[in-house]
Amino acid sequence: MKKFFSVSDAGNLSNLVDKALDIKSNPFAHKHLGENKMLGLVFLNPSLRTRMSTQIAAVNLGMDVIVMNMGQDGWALETKDGVVMNGDTVEHVKEAAAVMGSYCDVIGLRSFPSLKDKVQDYSEDFFNKFNAYCKVPLVSLESATRHPLQSLTDLITIRETWKSDKKPKILLAWAPHIKALPQAVPNSFSEWMCKAQEENLVDFQIAQPEGFELAPSFTQGASIYYDLQEGLKDVDYVYVKNWSSYENYGELYQGDASPWMIDLEHLKATNNAKVMHCLPVRRDVVLASEVLDSDHSIVIQEAGNRVWAAQAVLKSILENI
Amino acid sequence: MKKFFSVSDAGNLSNLVDKALDIKSNPFAHKHLGENKMLGLVFLNPSLRTRMSTQIAAVNLGMDVIVMNMGQDGWALETKDGVVMNGDTVEHVKEAAAVMGSYCDVIGLRSFPSLKDKVQDYSEDFFNKFNAYCKVPLVSLESATRHPLQSLTDLITIRETWKSDKKPKILLAWAPHIKALPQAVPNSFSEWMCKAQEENLVDFQIAQPEGFELAPSFTQGASIYYDLQEGLKDVDYVYVKNWSSYENYGELYQGDASPWMIDLEHLKATNNAKVMHCLPVRRDVVLASEVLDSDHSIVIQEAGNRVWAAQAVLKSILENI
Amino acid sequence: MKKFFSVSDAGNLSNLVDKALDIKSNPFAHKHLGENKMLGLVFLNPSLRTRMSTQIAAVNLGMDVIVMNMGQDGWALETKDGVVMNGDTVEHVKEAAAVMGSYCDVIGLRSFPSLKDKVQDYSEDFFNKFNAYCKVPLVSLESATRHPLQSLTDLITIRETWKSDKKPKILLAWAPHIKALPQAVPNSFSEWMCKAQEENLVDFQIAQPEGFELAPSFTQGASIYYDLQEGLKDVDYVYVKNWSSYENYGELYQGDASPWMIDLEHLKATNNAKVMHCLPVRRDVVLASEVLDSDHSIVIQEAGNRVWAAQAVLKSILENI
Repeated sequence: MKKFFSVSDAGNLSNLVDKALDIKSNPFAHKHLGENKMLGLVFLNPSLRTRMSTQIAAVNLGMDVIVMNMGQDGWALETKDGVVMNGDTVEHVKEAAAVMGSYCDVIGLRSFPSLKDKVQDYSEDFFNKFNAYCKVPLVSLESATRHPLQSLTDLITIRETWKSDKKPKILLAWAPHIKALPQAVPNSFSEWMCKAQEENLVDFQIAQPEGFELAPSFTQGASIYYDLQEGLKDVDYVYVKNWSSYENYGELYQGDASPWMIDLEHLKATNNAKVMHCLPVRRDVVLASEVLDSDHSIVIQEAGNRVWAAQAVLKSILENI
Repeated sequence: MKKFFSVSDAGNLSNLVDKALDIKSNPFAHKHLGENKMLGLVFLNPSLRTRMSTQIAAVNLGMDVIVMNMGQDGWALETKDGVVMNGDTVEHVKEAAAVMGSYCDVIGLRSFPSLKDKVQDYSEDFFNKFNAYCKVPLVSLESATRHPLQSLTDLITIRETWKSDKKPKILLAWAPHIKALPQAVPNSFSEWMCKAQEENLVDFQIAQPEGFELAPSFTQGASIYYDLQEGLKDVDYVYVKNWSSYENYGELYQGDASPWMIDLEHLKATNNAKVMHCLPVRRDVVLASEVLDSDHSIVIQEAGNRVWAAQAVLKSILENI
Repeated sequence: MKKFFSVSDAGNLSNLVDKALDIKSNPFAHKHLGENKMLGLVFLNPSLRTRMSTQIAAVNLGMDVIVMNMGQDGWALETKDGVVMNGDTVEHVKEAAAVMGSYCDVIGLRSFPSLKDKVQDYSEDFFNKFNAYCKVPLVSLESATRHPLQSLTDLITIRETWKSDKKPKILLAWAPHIKALPQAVPNSFSEWMCKAQEENLVDFQIAQPEGFELAPSFTQGASIYYDLQEGLKDVDYVYVKNWSSYENYGELYQGDASPWMIDLEHLKATNNAKVMHCLPVRRDVVLASEVLDSDHSIVIQEAGNRVWAAQAVLKSILENI
């Protein structure tokens, strides 16, 4: 692996999940692999789970880690070419990425979308430029449109908790929120589940209000329901997540979204479904406390698996350096 | 040791001090103990000494360390149950603590009191909830009402500097300040000194203005003086510290507090006392520069001992994982 | 080496550069040297290259590293003696430096000048006091008037890229900027190049507008040009950097500085010069993009060499502890 940005970098999903579960059962088996290798974690936006889990994954592999919180350091990067830099940006991504690439053997990068300019966000201009200029393997720690380490984690968690021979039926369910959130997590989840469906691992569908369709390129092969109750019927996993509109880019839901907040009553229509969320979750806004506090919820196990997803990716990268 | 929060977690104080001084004389003797063990240091409030000393203690034991500055990352945690999280808090302590506990083998946690709501602060609700949900050993790096690593440090420093066969006589002396400060450090110091007095290690007394009594549960067995000069008489150690009122919760001293600032003249009443302070100290507000710059002061040695206190506690925890 | 603050701490420059290039060719050869040694990196001002490169250098030598971003933690230090600390400063450098020195084996310290008070800045009062109180080897990560790790890096980069038997001719060229910047980098570069000229390694000259002379103590032996075109003639290296006025302390250039921005046309007068800059650089304000994107530019190689400069200095210090 030379880059980890979208599902197309993951190869066969089943193999990558196997690899991650092997690592989980023996986390320190490859401690030599990262010796004298430096991982730079570059955050343009804050992070808790991603930072901790990736840092631990690297340490488990024997790597050293440097964390740069660019936002906190007031280190605004310019991404546009040909601009006279007499404003707020202090350094161009050309230089910043090239320098960090010269210091580190692998880089992890987090950057959120603006939610203002759809074309710009969906071009993944920043991530692509950073990747081009840093010249070392680059791992997305969430970009404008994707969060692949989260999606790999989710697939690991489904594999780990699914005990039947038949394929699990999985619903991505839109949920309310008070702020406009990126589409990165649901895009990525959908992208990975569509690929898993192609690999005959899962059945995948989405429930969401009209006007909240994800970009079509992320949902090829997914059934879409505009009625939450219909979407929930007989599913084995409910993946709860808010996102702002792709169509009316970055807009919040107009009107009362509360019927979309899943509670125990909703879950009666499911096959005693497991409930997932990438966290952080606003209790009783996004998801009912009674669900989070019930046996339906596997959100903590899911968050814990972030380590093994990151470690599987870093291991694949280190094996190819 | 499974938790380090108050003096009751410390066991026999004399033994724990012995352990810390053993470690000080041979800091790297147990470097195998923490191998492949991760310490998470979670700061809701800033820290210099505590962060550096705990991080060094962990590294000396061979642990890996991740530091999370929650405040800087704008990661406000909800602690109340049953609240609809449509406000400023982005994640509930239930999830945050459980996730961090799944990532780390041991967690250190710092959180200051509000100084607004005495009942809430003294319930130690946040620390207790974090402890319940993280499910791994939790070390207080200062909580709403206590700072036990500081108090262990103080006891180590007294043992190290006391060369007589008789018990040292110790005064906790209230001092002026320009801001309302928590009672955590003096509460803890008093709690530990009262226990040390029970173990027949020290004689302990407090001097403070009326209305600045600490919560009675922390001062059982301590003599209390409202007159600084009387309190200072013949003491061997003066532990200088400001705190805001417990009675009129969080209030500053009304009137001129400057007579409570200890200078060389004050110390003439003592038995050539050593002067201690947990730092940071505002010179010539809390304590006279002439004292800090004199041989009376052992504040730097005291701060240095923070490493050995933390290392003794982490070692006890690692031995029980 | 006991301290690294100015060129006078560097000894023979040629030897130190040799040492750094040896390390570059074999970065992990001295991994035992820093075992059980702690480096504290204390930043009063933000840093990207300096933090990453120094941290990597330390790790390459087997040291452990703690980073303290004092500004972010709101930890304002008092430096004046005899002041009643009832204002914004929470701790005196006397205590802070002494405590950090008791925790660490080596300390790196970054602090920028005020650009308000020339006498105060050029006294290097803060660095000198920190050095006096910390009592362990102190490495400047940029101080009020100097940035010696940058200058060592620059000399390494010149050595590495210069393939002729004759001495290279080097120009420090003042450049435009939108903000008032310290003189630390150009002071230091000039100080090191003047010494290198004494050691018969280079020929050194400066081009700058009138009124932008550096402090004379940093430019002994350098030819000074007020005409950029004259300064550029036949030089082998152009070191581009803005600085605010030393004479009219901290003032920006009045009028149109744009003729001082070097582009490809300017470089025609040179001996096909290599172009250097310490980064970050504002493109098309300080330096033309067409130059940065051309083969003239060695700014990325230069930034990469920061690691070997830091590692050579830390190695010299560790060998003397």
